[in-house]
Amino acid sequence: MNDLLVEFKVNTRIRPCSAHAFELNAGDELVVVDPQGQQVSDLVAFAKSDVREYLSSGRTLDYASKLWLSTGDLLYSNRSAPMFTILEDTCGRHDFTLAPCSREMFETIYGEKEERPGCEGNLEKVLEKYGIDRDCIPTAFNVFMNVGIDPSTGAIAVLPPLSKPGDFIRFKAEMDLVVGLTACSAGQSNNFSYKPIDFRIESPA
Amino acid sequence: MNDLLVEFKVNTRIRPCSAHAFELNAGDELVVVDPQGQQVSDLVAFAKSDVREYLSSGRTLDYASKLWLSTGDLLYSNRSAPMFTILEDTCGRHDFTLAPCSREMFETIYGEKEERPGCEGNLEKVLEKYGIDRDCIPTAFNVFMNVGIDPSTGAIAVLPPLSKPGDFIRFKAEMDLVVGLTACSAGQSNNFSYKPIDFRIESPA
Repeated sequence: MNDLLVEFKVNTRIRPCSAHAFELNAGDELVVVDPQGQQVSDLVAFAKSDVREYLSSGRTLDYASKLWLSTGDLLYSNRSAPMFTILEDTCGRHDFTLAPCSREMFETIYGEKEERPGCEGNLEKVLEKYGIDRDCIPTAFNVFMNVGIDPSTGAIAVLPPLSKPGDFIRFKAEMDLVVGLTACSAGQSNNFSYKPIDFRIESPA
Repeated sequence: MNDLLVEFKVNTRIRPCSAHAFELNAGDELVVVDPQGQQVSDLVAFAKSDVREYLSSGRTLDYASKLWLSTGDLLYSNRSAPMFTILEDTCGRHDFTLAPCSREMFETIYGEKEERPGCEGNLEKVLEKYGIDRDCIPTAFNVFMNVGIDPSTGAIAVLPPLSKPGDFIRFKAEMDLVVGLTACSAGQSNNFSYKPIDFRIESPA
């Protein structure tokens, strides 16, 4: 009967321009999938035991000694504790320098007047129940975001993501976590089309 | 008598491996000087009206569309409000990606066992009276810090600062601020010698 067994991997879909929040136990694996390609997903994380401990860009980049993280790299909290290990990564390019898109960012950079909440507003809404408000939302780990750097001037170019349909990144939680995850709402980051993001949590047997 | 008038510019000296905290009113100008050359100074800032609003690396780099900020650039808060304008900059290279050095960082990167507080611990101590604790200290604007980026791999190299003795950067405060400023304690950032930093505040007439 063994050859009739099928491993089901059920993803949860995050609709375009929205966010989900959920908890992970230490050891859980979080798989973030780009189902259609060229779609960014902002990831923020907080220690479940004390949400003032958060996933820190500045700490992580310092310890990694590189801007672009991938398989084998650790993501650290502001208190220098490992929060995630990247176990697999079929895309290979993500960003950890730019803040989540926001209403003010859309107005300043794109001249938008619609007052869309952006990843920041969407994360604020889903994380409220954990006592995490807007001021607690740090620079996110921007899954699939493709930021080019000019090494002579430091100029940043937000380019179309390198992710193809089905590309994924697998994180292992190194502590009990509260996580916020988005399907990003910023035009330039997503090659100007707003697409969904899928994720699933795999717990060790 | 006019040619006998002398403009005195009295600097305050921050001793090696320490920090100061002070307030700025909107419009005040903060001048940070490297008196001996090749010395980094970590700058953090908070809105005086609500210290949960802080100088944000992720917001600033996004709005500037560049990693390296200099004359004419604005530094933004996490709430997308301008906190500083850089009015003058005789050095031209600073960093805004790496977290302040800390006891844990010295242990992880350098294998130090002495438990030196680093910029993080020094800032924590001087900012405590403003209700700002360790978890509130974000990625700093690292004045004079020289971080090279490999554009193909994203690898970071912490290089000796480009600042020569007397080089300075002048910031204009765009709101009432609480500021923390250090003479940085990290070996590699300061070409392995710990030197002082000078600063002064010039208020408009």
